[in-house]
Amino acid sequence: MDLRGIEAALEEAKKGYNEGGIPIGSVILNDQGEYLGLGHNQRIQKSSPTLHAEIAALEDAGRQKSDIYRRATLYTTLSPCSMCTGAILLYKIPRVVIGENSNFKGDEDLLRNRGVEVTVVDDEECKNLMRRFIEEKPEEWYEDIGEAS
Amino acid sequence: MDLRGIEAALEEAKKGYNEGGIPIGSVILNDQGEYLGLGHNQRIQKSSPTLHAEIAALEDAGRQKSDIYRRATLYTTLSPCSMCTGAILLYKIPRVVIGENSNFKGDEDLLRNRGVEVTVVDDEECKNLMRRFIEEKPEEWYEDIGEAS
Repeated sequence: MDLRGIEAALEEAKKGYNEGGIPIGSVILNDQGEYLGLGHNQRIQKSSPTLHAEIAALEDAGRQKSDIYRRATLYTTLSPCSMCTGAILLYKIPRVVIGENSNFKGDEDLLRNRGVEVTVVDDEECKNLMRRFIEEKPEEWYEDIGEAS
Repeated sequence: MDLRGIEAALEEAKKGYNEGGIPIGSVILNDQGEYLGLGHNQRIQKSSPTLHAEIAALEDAGRQKSDIYRRATLYTTLSPCSMCTGAILLYKIPRVVIGENSNFKGDEDLLRNRGVEVTVVDDEECKNLMRRFIEEKPEEWYEDIGEAS
């Protein structure tokens, strides 16, 4: 498997961490392996409840025709929440590669049930960065997934 | 049923239409009937693939604690797509009131299966405004739901 996508998503997550933000990154590649969009969680930086990493990457990609999404792959350092799962389903992105799902497991079963190919890489660096953030700033993390800390 | 929420969402949809945008509006009220946030689809205005009306209303509400969402009601002029459905599930908003679902039917069954109380008002004005837009600008509409026009 080509892991450049996850490496790039992890770079985005690190940028987020260095900005004081929630360290989750995402990139979207087209079927030629070229970047369509990339981004990281902006809850803290932009006081945004919806700019999760995957949504930020979709925003970065901008308006695209349906056939572009349908040949794309979305990479994310952490298992996508319900909202990001829904965004993947809306645009019918057929492949999702997830860095890790041990700090948080989102709606992967829904993705699979709707025909999305989901791969969990179980990357140690993704896990360690996220675990470190949750230990440092639990309130921000739980707010990001709609839970009380 | 208190229909002020749908009336306010329809006002947002009309604002969107008058801006040349996709006329879908949404408002979120707290358990006292006070506004938490409101907004309308920004695909055309901000060239945004993720600022659907419901996402725009969540953005307008800003960062909120989990217990605020869990006592809120989201109103939207049109049945929520997968992404907006996922955002409602992420924040565990317990009640969704939908203006109409004849021009588009989103993931209402998933909302209901996850315990969200869903009411479809079947409002003529919501239907007419949306139908008019789809006839006028089918390409923009189909792009917004990830379909080819």
